[in-house]
Amino acid sequence: MIKAGIVGGTGYTGIELLRLLSQHPQVELAAITSRQEAGTAVSAMFPSLRGRVSLSFSHPDKAPLKNCDVVFFATPNGVAMGEARALVDAGARIVDISADFRLKDVAEWERWYKVKHAAPELVAEAVYGLCEVNRDRIRGARLVANPGCYPTAVQLGLLPLVEAGAVDLDHLIADAKSGVSGAGRKAELKLMHAEASDNFAAYGVAGHRHWPEIRQGLAQAAGREVGLVFIPHLTPMIRGIHATLYGRITKELDFQALYEKRYAGEPFVDVMPAGSHPDTRSTRAANVCRIAVHRPRERGERGDTLVVLSVIDNLMKGASGQAVQNMNLMFGLPETAGLEQVSVVP
Amino acid sequence: MIKAGIVGGTGYTGIELLRLLSQHPQVELAAITSRQEAGTAVSAMFPSLRGRVSLSFSHPDKAPLKNCDVVFFATPNGVAMGEARALVDAGARIVDISADFRLKDVAEWERWYKVKHAAPELVAEAVYGLCEVNRDRIRGARLVANPGCYPTAVQLGLLPLVEAGAVDLDHLIADAKSGVSGAGRKAELKLMHAEASDNFAAYGVAGHRHWPEIRQGLAQAAGREVGLVFIPHLTPMIRGIHATLYGRITKELDFQALYEKRYAGEPFVDVMPAGSHPDTRSTRAANVCRIAVHRPRERGERGDTLVVLSVIDNLMKGASGQAVQNMNLMFGLPETAGLEQVSVVP
Amino acid sequence: MIKAGIVGGTGYTGIELLRLLSQHPQVELAAITSRQEAGTAVSAMFPSLRGRVSLSFSHPDKAPLKNCDVVFFATPNGVAMGEARALVDAGARIVDISADFRLKDVAEWERWYKVKHAAPELVAEAVYGLCEVNRDRIRGARLVANPGCYPTAVQLGLLPLVEAGAVDLDHLIADAKSGVSGAGRKAELKLMHAEASDNFAAYGVAGHRHWPEIRQGLAQAAGREVGLVFIPHLTPMIRGIHATLYGRITKELDFQALYEKRYAGEPFVDVMPAGSHPDTRSTRAANVCRIAVHRPRERGERGDTLVVLSVIDNLMKGASGQAVQNMNLMFGLPETAGLEQVSVVP
Amino acid sequence: MIKAGIVGGTGYTGIELLRLLSQHPQVELAAITSRQEAGTAVSAMFPSLRGRVSLSFSHPDKAPLKNCDVVFFATPNGVAMGEARALVDAGARIVDISADFRLKDVAEWERWYKVKHAAPELVAEAVYGLCEVNRDRIRGARLVANPGCYPTAVQLGLLPLVEAGAVDLDHLIADAKSGVSGAGRKAELKLMHAEASDNFAAYGVAGHRHWPEIRQGLAQAAGREVGLVFIPHLTPMIRGIHATLYGRITKELDFQALYEKRYAGEPFVDVMPAGSHPDTRSTRAANVCRIAVHRPRERGERGDTLVVLSVIDNLMKGASGQAVQNMNLMFGLPETAGLEQVSVVP
Repeated sequence: MIKAGIVGGTGYTGIELLRLLSQHPQVELAAITSRQEAGTAVSAMFPSLRGRVSLSFSHPDKAPLKNCDVVFFATPNGVAMGEARALVDAGARIVDISADFRLKDVAEWERWYKVKHAAPELVAEAVYGLCEVNRDRIRGARLVANPGCYPTAVQLGLLPLVEAGAVDLDHLIADAKSGVSGAGRKAELKLMHAEASDNFAAYGVAGHRHWPEIRQGLAQAAGREVGLVFIPHLTPMIRGIHATLYGRITKELDFQALYEKRYAGEPFVDVMPAGSHPDTRSTRAANVCRIAVHRPRERGERGDTLVVLSVIDNLMKGASGQAVQNMNLMFGLPETAGLEQVSVVP
Repeated sequence: MIKAGIVGGTGYTGIELLRLLSQHPQVELAAITSRQEAGTAVSAMFPSLRGRVSLSFSHPDKAPLKNCDVVFFATPNGVAMGEARALVDAGARIVDISADFRLKDVAEWERWYKVKHAAPELVAEAVYGLCEVNRDRIRGARLVANPGCYPTAVQLGLLPLVEAGAVDLDHLIADAKSGVSGAGRKAELKLMHAEASDNFAAYGVAGHRHWPEIRQGLAQAAGREVGLVFIPHLTPMIRGIHATLYGRITKELDFQALYEKRYAGEPFVDVMPAGSHPDTRSTRAANVCRIAVHRPRERGERGDTLVVLSVIDNLMKGASGQAVQNMNLMFGLPETAGLEQVSVVP
Repeated sequence: MIKAGIVGGTGYTGIELLRLLSQHPQVELAAITSRQEAGTAVSAMFPSLRGRVSLSFSHPDKAPLKNCDVVFFATPNGVAMGEARALVDAGARIVDISADFRLKDVAEWERWYKVKHAAPELVAEAVYGLCEVNRDRIRGARLVANPGCYPTAVQLGLLPLVEAGAVDLDHLIADAKSGVSGAGRKAELKLMHAEASDNFAAYGVAGHRHWPEIRQGLAQAAGREVGLVFIPHLTPMIRGIHATLYGRITKELDFQALYEKRYAGEPFVDVMPAGSHPDTRSTRAANVCRIAVHRPRERGERGDTLVVLSVIDNLMKGASGQAVQNMNLMFGLPETAGLEQVSVVP
Repeated sequence: MIKAGIVGGTGYTGIELLRLLSQHPQVELAAITSRQEAGTAVSAMFPSLRGRVSLSFSHPDKAPLKNCDVVFFATPNGVAMGEARALVDAGARIVDISADFRLKDVAEWERWYKVKHAAPELVAEAVYGLCEVNRDRIRGARLVANPGCYPTAVQLGLLPLVEAGAVDLDHLIADAKSGVSGAGRKAELKLMHAEASDNFAAYGVAGHRHWPEIRQGLAQAAGREVGLVFIPHLTPMIRGIHATLYGRITKELDFQALYEKRYAGEPFVDVMPAGSHPDTRSTRAANVCRIAVHRPRERGERGDTLVVLSVIDNLMKGASGQAVQNMNLMFGLPETAGLEQVSVVP
């Protein structure tokens, strides 16, 4: 059994990790920390885990994290970078679900996250945990930077096109819609039911931290810089991201075949039949990204713009599910271990 | 007092018309028809109108529509084209909220609506009821084709750019999100709460009837054909459309000023301050389109793509509210008469 | 024109008052205060009011409240009691939408609100603003205590039975369900969309501040103390209260007739036909309470329990709408002035 | 491996069964029937099952149901009673999720379901599948009548009181709130998102088919007839039932202890700590009933009414989860096999 620790287990990625790890056949939950909730039984805070998780939250200073085989950071940005060094030195391997190690350009990171990076040398070592891209490097990694939710949906949706150089890489568009849990478990006015339900709006059009992360991934796939307009929207649902992706075609290909080939054998990417409209609920509570490729008309019968629809559950393939997938790779387990939940529909 | 009749008053545009007309200071509701509900009191079907509407539904053959000053068609597509002739000949003026008279190209209309048009000569006469474009012609019209909901949001959002020739007219993109009432008051599986709530998906990517309507309007504004990718999505909310519009800039302008100037004096178009993110609820139950103009980065500090956010209540500015606005114009009333409802927030 | 001031205009009862008063034919909005938002334009905070409200928030110390004819307190509990004296002395009349003056028993009030009352002498003077009970006294009042949302729905639903002594007054049950806006515009974890949507739970079973308020009102109607179990529940909707009320029959009457007679002529209480199931949306954004009376079977064909369904919009008849109704009474206006909004459905 | 068949697999209980059985370690899905969808791949209809269920729907006449060890009826009422005989004779055991075999009194059944019963002799044999009551009889049953959703929540909530004779059995009250999936996967106007969301209403106050089912169960527990007012309400959520149960205390007991003792050792009934307010989402997608017991004040410090809160996921413990629990009992499997899903929160 792999001994797993969770730092910061009171947010949505934390409770989702608990749901997954408590059912994982090869994992033993060794510790979960929360400064505020130290001493509280996990199941007292989250009644959905009554009878399933017997741990209590530990104070971060007292938790036996160094004895863990793997430590997940389900913390706000800025925590993992301060604590990772000691854990890595002690031999624990890390999956950081926060953003601390995602951007390779430390100066860029510091511009977006508005704080000095505490462990730039670990940034260089960290492997970006998009399994469908970095599977082999993840296997050997000591520190995995788990991708953001939008970046997962957008990159998986655009990678085949970008790798094939089939669309105009200077003017990609990602029109993305997210459920409210993507913002985390925090009391914020615009996330309240009375504000967010029966409502729809864009936000962060002037700049969103996931923009440089997506551009970094696509640039690596393209071997050159890419231009991207990224417009996130808040949608009145709990879970789910729907990315509608637009690229101007520059090379004629069988795009459906391109996608099917790129993701053949991938356990958690589902290229749907041509003409499909994947809905977010078909990924609800499951670790999967579903993708459909379209080429609609623009005028007459002609269309030069490829439209890709990419959906995930932001807490699963967009966060905690992908974190477990990374752990599975790191420890030589079957990649699907503990991740075989079927989507909850309706 | 203007005597108004409503044909087909049991759908969402019908009940919204009833809400508006029952409060309109210069309108008297003379008749409302429904084949199925003939004899039923309107307020028995819609308890929200108890004490406000004393009419009962009449059978279409028996309703005194020809004596009305104005007749609204709140019917499924295909009804108005069969009945308009007789009413017009009798001297009634018509606002058709359905799609029968929106497309000037009758062959194109027949391709999309899959039925032979019953009154092509009226198509030629009909005035497209987008008040911000055709105000003067609407004043004198006998027959107004009230625009569709998506076409209203998309056209109002793109018109200033198209009229100015400021963006690439071959590759416009409209990524539109609609609440479920846009599909009408009909029991359809995908519109059920258990299916549509906590869910998000695109639909009709291969072709949607509002695509030719939008292209017709933009082409007229441009004086040339335009290319448009139009992707509608279903959002878990009751009312509201949010159109996120993308155009590649071809001419540098002060875009904020362009919009403010274009819509200066318009009572129902609100150009918001630069940097705004209009939310759909800010238009809930009100006859207004709110617009914000953005120019986000694509790479480095540069951006070549203009992003316009345009929101409406699909039942108000997207249907019945605009229909009343058209009626006001047709009868020389103040354009805002009966349309001064403030948005219901929260 | 009546000059109206609003103290604390940034909450839900505040914005709802703004919606109503900005359309009221005989009211001029003179001032709206907010300590935090002083200087901010109201329409910058609430874009739904763009073009409708030109005021900015004033600091409470600088607002010309003493020159107002009427001042509404849309504040958290505990504010009005400190400021009412000075305003009343200056000649302004007050409608307090908060709870400060609702309970006549000051000691009881202090137990529930956990603070010493600052103006007990005004408690004695204050008139409880349930118009259907205290209409005449409201007309002459200087200070009206606007009822709570649950108390409005529950009292209007039970009053005919209690006044008639037709049910067991020791064991009334009010099973009440509220939308989230009832909790106010505040960022609280359990009110977030990710927590409250697609979810349902009771709360405050051990004790809720509206319990003594309801019991006070019913006791006054009964002329004796009453026993009441009051169970509030949080429902995933924005607005609306549905109270399901149970009373054991002690006197056989024609209950439908009893209700119709009790509320005959009431402009804002709608006794629906026997067998009706009023839904909350039939009151959405409108100042109305709809009531249906049922006598279901318990065993065989017999039933001894009367079930009354009572629905309101908690921000309208449950708060700001009723506040305007009180103002209309206080100033001799038609009771329905500015309150003729039709429910927004769908 | 147990060979399982599903009759009528296109509804919500059907897809939920598929989710459960496709992950059950000791079940092999042998057949699933649908008259309308014969030949369609299950995963084409339900994309959430892509990669998980490879079966196609079979025509009922051609499906190898008689070779199955167990057949689940996930059909509308009235189907199972016509087909059960032949299957039972062929040696298959049956779990009927519909209502055909729930009421022992055939005449009563026929009054409520308005059709003649096709297999009254099987009614006598059928075992009512409330595992917490009939566990032993279920083990040996050939035909199990799976309880309704409301009856599960209400009976589990009231049984300890009824068995102990601790409350007035003539006047029980069940105020129950259900998500929309309880009505099944059918296009019905009042279940549409535009109608049901942001709304709340009671329905069926005059009579609901679950009323006699609940009374039958409670009467059996009491050894005498019971009186019950049962008021169901439609709540804007997908899954979940919250039953708020009221009983007048006739015998003083330690009620918390009564419940804890009654359900000690039950794997799927969770008696929460005193003072708890279970929310429906804490059961979402999990086979569990959570219960809390309260004794609120009615006047002064005294309360004679016990209030029990009982929540389930209507598709799990209220339907398909309980059906699998019954199957586990019938085939000597661990009762929790395939039912260890953790609730999906948020």
